[in-house]
Amino acid sequence: MTGTTRSYDYIHDGAAIYARSFATIRTEADLSGFTPDEARVAVRIIHACGMVDVAREIRMSPDFTAAAQGALRAGRPILCDAEMVARGVTRTRLPADNAVICTLRDPRTPEIARQIGNTRSAAALDLWGDDMAGAVVAIGNAPTALFHLLELIAAGAPRPAAVIGMPVGFVGAAESKEALAEFGDLPFIIVRGRLGGSAMAAATVNALACEAE
Amino acid sequence: MTGTTRSYDYIHDGAAIYARSFATIRTEADLSGFTPDEARVAVRIIHACGMVDVAREIRMSPDFTAAAQGALRAGRPILCDAEMVARGVTRTRLPADNAVICTLRDPRTPEIARQIGNTRSAAALDLWGDDMAGAVVAIGNAPTALFHLLELIAAGAPRPAAVIGMPVGFVGAAESKEALAEFGDLPFIIVRGRLGGSAMAAATVNALACEAE
Repeated sequence: MTGTTRSYDYIHDGAAIYARSFATIRTEADLSGFTPDEARVAVRIIHACGMVDVAREIRMSPDFTAAAQGALRAGRPILCDAEMVARGVTRTRLPADNAVICTLRDPRTPEIARQIGNTRSAAALDLWGDDMAGAVVAIGNAPTALFHLLELIAAGAPRPAAVIGMPVGFVGAAESKEALAEFGDLPFIIVRGRLGGSAMAAATVNALACEAE
Repeated sequence: MTGTTRSYDYIHDGAAIYARSFATIRTEADLSGFTPDEARVAVRIIHACGMVDVAREIRMSPDFTAAAQGALRAGRPILCDAEMVARGVTRTRLPADNAVICTLRDPRTPEIARQIGNTRSAAALDLWGDDMAGAVVAIGNAPTALFHLLELIAAGAPRPAAVIGMPVGFVGAAESKEALAEFGDLPFIIVRGRLGGSAMAAATVNALACEAE
């Protein structure tokens, strides 16, 4: 086993891998319900999770892609509930060197969580303040963060331009995403049900940030 | 919409959310093919992706959990192909303040990629050097990184204690994971097919690092 040369037959070129991946996705996935801009978002979400069938669970408000793209081009920040979401945003794709902000590890967050009786993921949003105005919010982990976001906006917090609602899992994920879709007057994308996660949320930002696949 | 109070009915306590999530997973998922240690890993992978059916695609060598747990307790590093994997490892669960290393953004990586004619994800592994000896390797993004890892080991690089093989996607992911499973004498876990990703890879590390759910 050791000291031998073993080589595998695989594509070594990153651009070629991307091109073949996206071609496969566009061949296999049913994107007929999407506009071209929406389809680019769906393709990247599929690419992030390896499942073409996730397209069936993607819902966007008709104003979502334009609102999010406008916010990014205007240099508004990207506010993330989890470090993994922030880490997954490809900085070189961003149109205006946008700030990518995650306050989960801010030293003030644990105390806020105690005060408001919620998770740290939810409490971290209380530190977003005026950055929320016109921002792109990307929730890729915690249902509590998405519920709390809606509570903050209903109570008068600055409105984001668009909300990416993709918390994952078994407790509250599906419900929080339905609440976002039903909130009203807030451009949104969700992946319905239990599916979601930081990779899908970051992929959505990356698709909106730059038209190049 | 603005200035009203709106509150949603959801669980606000992080520990209660975890407990209910894991109870749901253990009720719904078929874990009958796993040992108790393996089942804890499978449960966290399911928790990371929201799909109980992923259990069907999880394969581990019989020595995987013991080898990986031993390496972590011995303080060996966790070597990751992607920043998102590294970011997903919960530091407070690690038994020996283990180093979590990702060399993808090392300034030397792009030049190595040019020299070896491979992706930056693969080239980054050439910087792992002696850290590979007895380490836990976590591949959650790039099939090229997993193929290159096997090539390096076959050529005599220091052997890791265990390999988490969970690249995701449409080009090479399934093939690279099968190659890992067939490599021989290398403790491994894979998620077969296109599924995988940084969240699943990090969840595997987090499950192995600490028995507490």
